[in-house]
Amino acid sequence: MSRTLLILPGDGIGPEAMAETVKVIDWFNANRATGFEIEEDLVGGCAYDVHGKPLADATMDRAQQVDAVLLGAVGGPKWDNLDFSVKPERGLLRLRKEMDLFANLRPAICFPALADASSLKKELVEGLDLMIIRELTGGVYFGEPRGITQMNDGTRRGVNTQVYTTEEIRRVARVAFDLARKRSNRVLSSEKANVMESGILWREEVQWVHDNEFPDVELSHMYADAVAMQLVRRPKQFDVIVTDNLFGDILSDEASMLSGSLGMLPSASLGAADPATGKRKALYEPVHGSAPDIAGQGIANPLACILSFAMCLRYSFDMGADADLLEAAVSKVLDDGVRTGDIAEPGVAPVGTKEMGDAVVAALGAL
Amino acid sequence: MSRTLLILPGDGIGPEAMAETVKVIDWFNANRATGFEIEEDLVGGCAYDVHGKPLADATMDRAQQVDAVLLGAVGGPKWDNLDFSVKPERGLLRLRKEMDLFANLRPAICFPALADASSLKKELVEGLDLMIIRELTGGVYFGEPRGITQMNDGTRRGVNTQVYTTEEIRRVARVAFDLARKRSNRVLSSEKANVMESGILWREEVQWVHDNEFPDVELSHMYADAVAMQLVRRPKQFDVIVTDNLFGDILSDEASMLSGSLGMLPSASLGAADPATGKRKALYEPVHGSAPDIAGQGIANPLACILSFAMCLRYSFDMGADADLLEAAVSKVLDDGVRTGDIAEPGVAPVGTKEMGDAVVAALGAL
Ligand SMILES: CC(C)[C@H](C(=O)O)[C@@H](O)C(=O)O
Ligand SMILES: CC(C)[C@H](C(=O)O)[C@@H](O)C(=O)O
Repeated sequence: MSRTLLILPGDGIGPEAMAETVKVIDWFNANRATGFEIEEDLVGGCAYDVHGKPLADATMDRAQQVDAVLLGAVGGPKWDNLDFSVKPERGLLRLRKEMDLFANLRPAICFPALADASSLKKELVEGLDLMIIRELTGGVYFGEPRGITQMNDGTRRGVNTQVYTTEEIRRVARVAFDLARKRSNRVLSSEKANVMESGILWREEVQWVHDNEFPDVELSHMYADAVAMQLVRRPKQFDVIVTDNLFGDILSDEASMLSGSLGMLPSASLGAADPATGKRKALYEPVHGSAPDIAGQGIANPLACILSFAMCLRYSFDMGADADLLEAAVSKVLDDGVRTGDIAEPGVAPVGTKEMGDAVVAALGAL
Repeated sequence: MSRTLLILPGDGIGPEAMAETVKVIDWFNANRATGFEIEEDLVGGCAYDVHGKPLADATMDRAQQVDAVLLGAVGGPKWDNLDFSVKPERGLLRLRKEMDLFANLRPAICFPALADASSLKKELVEGLDLMIIRELTGGVYFGEPRGITQMNDGTRRGVNTQVYTTEEIRRVARVAFDLARKRSNRVLSSEKANVMESGILWREEVQWVHDNEFPDVELSHMYADAVAMQLVRRPKQFDVIVTDNLFGDILSDEASMLSGSLGMLPSASLGAADPATGKRKALYEPVHGSAPDIAGQGIANPLACILSFAMCLRYSFDMGADADLLEAAVSKVLDDGVRTGDIAEPGVAPVGTKEMGDAVVAALGAL
């Protein structure tokens, strides 16, 4: 069985975090005979600097071929003024779109050792474990027509199109219901059906999938603005939330910050299961961005990237036990009080990126 | 000088909250010779029940004529399954659109007496005083084409259009910069310019207004997902935020919940200043919704509605001293420990809607 990983460290703190993740992969190869083969390539601003675009066609081809892609982060002030079509983000968006990674799984977990780090009161976030399923290849991110039009009177008009089809909604809803069955059997779907027809379609199609295929799962609906409120008010009321690309972008970022563990949160972006092999195309990346302000200093938290590899073990290779092991190692490191600067309590001396990676590898060996 | 108010209590807790607001208006008429004249009419589900649509044309006409509109809230489960075109919300959206109320001012203030009620740690929200200026008549709420299309293969396609023009962006930006000059002289503008061309236009036009008309005000830009995060992380970093209709809907709801004072937060929706008289069309309403779960029980918090009238005094009638007086009366009531259920600490017996209204009127008399 082939286990080829394409590693795209990207920009900012991406390469630093990915270097520690590679240590972890090496540990699995050495100690668990996992036989991962690693290829590495460029994405984002660093790809633009070399190729004049944020994702070379050859890289795109490899991403389509390998068993899973691990991505660090893209973007930074150096590339802020590039034309829209070659911005670092376009590299990431091209990967998502061409690999057809329509289901983005974004857990927001509050690690017990970090409950104090949240800006929310401890009792509101302790034990938080919610999963946002964000539709990732449709909606306003990719809808046409789009662009800026110059008008005759010298003014301009900017347009984007929010568009969803029956099938786009149904397939991501199925991922949510499937996952809910392995969790608390509840799904909340979110849109703005009170003001957007695309939201009405969203609600009706999610309801259809529920009624026809998953009647055993509890389904409720809530407007996106209400979810934004309720996430702050009582985040533990939620379990699985399914929503569109744009609402998912905003709500999952809000949720990740609630947990107090932003530097800790991984994500998985999955395509459809191949009818013959059951395999899904997949890309794994931290929820956090490229953090240019701290890049290159060796102080970034690599745990979100490392935990993205745990998701990769679970979702791409069905190696649940190994994923559990890696997550346990991360928990142990946190319980031992090892902290990078972003999660260190005042008075606690933080460790660097490398020390954190080494601590995880050591914990893997000790478990 | 005419001072005619059109009062639209609407649905759910709207009528209860508005009844207390009318007591306050009566107090001003009796004690400060303000001479407000009140008309009352229907909007939302209750208007649908009578007229078969959520806003009668005659009501729309009066809204255009009067000096200011006060609205309670619209919507409720009774009308959830109505056709999109006659849903309660369409009444509110029609008012906003036809009165051209493009600037929605949504303060998120943490009342000192309520700092403990926030789900955020007290030190993060104590003293919070931010103002979100939401564009209210453009974007995906009103853009064409829109709707659900039946496809030949039996599937459907839902479309909405996000569209902004130079002038729509500039005029709301001006409101934000103007207001910033009276506050801390800082504006943060938010969009998703990294994925949406309409966001690029937004950013460029806001920057243009800054560079050409308000170079003295400090301007920064932040993606909407990052704002959603930073609002949770460190809300006091913000002062004036200007953003589009949809992002404003979500971010202002998130911000209002942070303050711990959702039942307390008013809003103002303003049109352009009349070139001759300087007067703006205006509608004032609480940020909270119609809360059908507690409607009719006499327990809703009327303070957001009452404080919306304070905004009305300030923005429609330039009666800043009276607005200050009313806000001071509300603060006094809170300092005295009077609480409706939504803001009562455990162990404190809450008062009802009427008692809260009476307490404000009594405080007005005592100040
Ligand atoms: C980098 C950007 C294009 C991206 C998005 O908006 O999807 C990011 O915010 C995310 O959530 O992965
Ligand atoms: C009721 C609804 C149409 C409205 C909106 O989405 O604008 C509400 O959420 C608001 O924020 O005023």
